[in-house]
Amino acid sequence: MLSKARIKLINQLKQKKYRELNNMFLAEGSINVIDFIKSGINIIELFATEKWIQNNEHNLSLISQTTISSKDLKKISSLSSPSEVLAILELPNTKSTINIDVKNLTIALDNISDPGNLGTIIRTADWFGIKQIFCSTNTVDAFNPKVVQATMGSLARVKVTYTNLNTLFENKPKDLPIFGALLSGKPITEMQPQKNGVILIGSEAHGISNELLPFISHKITIPSYNQNATNNLESLNASVANAIICYALCKK
Amino acid sequence: MLSKARIKLINQLKQKKYRELNNMFLAEGSINVIDFIKSGINIIELFATEKWIQNNEHNLSLISQTTISSKDLKKISSLSSPSEVLAILELPNTKSTINIDVKNLTIALDNISDPGNLGTIIRTADWFGIKQIFCSTNTVDAFNPKVVQATMGSLARVKVTYTNLNTLFENKPKDLPIFGALLSGKPITEMQPQKNGVILIGSEAHGISNELLPFISHKITIPSYNQNATNNLESLNASVANAIICYALCKK
Repeated sequence: MLSKARIKLINQLKQKKYRELNNMFLAEGSINVIDFIKSGINIIELFATEKWIQNNEHNLSLISQTTISSKDLKKISSLSSPSEVLAILELPNTKSTINIDVKNLTIALDNISDPGNLGTIIRTADWFGIKQIFCSTNTVDAFNPKVVQATMGSLARVKVTYTNLNTLFENKPKDLPIFGALLSGKPITEMQPQKNGVILIGSEAHGISNELLPFISHKITIPSYNQNATNNLESLNASVANAIICYALCKK
Repeated sequence: MLSKARIKLINQLKQKKYRELNNMFLAEGSINVIDFIKSGINIIELFATEKWIQNNEHNLSLISQTTISSKDLKKISSLSSPSEVLAILELPNTKSTINIDVKNLTIALDNISDPGNLGTIIRTADWFGIKQIFCSTNTVDAFNPKVVQATMGSLARVKVTYTNLNTLFENKPKDLPIFGALLSGKPITEMQPQKNGVILIGSEAHGISNELLPFISHKITIPSYNQNATNNLESLNASVANAIICYALCKK
């Protein structure tokens, strides 16, 4: 059974202020929830259909579970096609100061506002073995339900930190390269795979902030092969640009 | 002024059946609308703020225009942040039988259901100079407002056709390659750029349909560099997979 208090809490957790106030976030869908359980994150409570709980019993030994109907899941879901499971999880600390991993490639995101794009970027980073993403403080919250959904479980494996990118770059080792995705620069097709460095992606609408441009050590661009490209064909989708750059720089 | 009949029509055009019944679709946002005007498509009616019409007068000479307030635009918009312009356009014929362009790369999409993914795939195709996309009949409608929005004007330049992919492939020239994106196959990192052929992308949930697999002449895959990849890290987002394959095969 789903109490009124639980429905209220779950609905509140769709908003960032209540996620921070309660130190909780939501994950939906079997892949997401199972990946979070395997990552060792603290599951506060799990709501699922009887069938899902039976099928996943081996993963749930220490977890507080509530069996609910598909109809009740629909009531609390953020998805247009509700899945069989929704969990309340402990919010990881995304604001602690951590150092850039100087031995591997990492990603820095400047003002990415679309939840689907952020989720896809986290998912792509995971695919290519990138474990750290730094987000400017005006980037959409990674624990927004739409972002969590789009990561397809990758948020359980990739560490996302919100920070002032300016300060982060000021304090990084001087020889750590920053690869800035711009509309002009060295074609990514001519770049070699890189062992380490920061891939810096700006927003589609505004590009990389002016204040961050001086930190870029390698300006890179994705060449367009469209002969009829107009000024209106401004850029690729941010998650697509990120994917092509990750592919080209991580390639082994 | 916006009449009640117009508001009703615009709201109806958010649904596929009314788009087909009226032979019309909607485009919002300055980039989208201007790109459609430049493409020569028939603009049935355009609703915009006074300021937008003044700024774009040189593009609007033969177009039926209605000046409306931002408040009225908000009423008819499909967007969470309404733009300054919305247009009703003549729906292109997406079902006519056309032959595969055998001299260039083209894309075939099998059961892509997410509007954002389809829009991003069309936008990426445009960037890489791919002019033809064939969609299985169960792929989401390209003239859905969310798809149109995500294409950022590219739908004005890329020809999208809905067809039975089985029949399309049965009738294609025998030597035209079909590159199928699968979870196993030749790593895309080892592929050379291609002059022509069909890039076949399946849905994230179901992959490429069984009935289409025999048509694939080149099985290709995007290698993951994640050492901790679990079975749950099933695939990349469909629009990301498409982008990396377009990038690798179109590279000049």
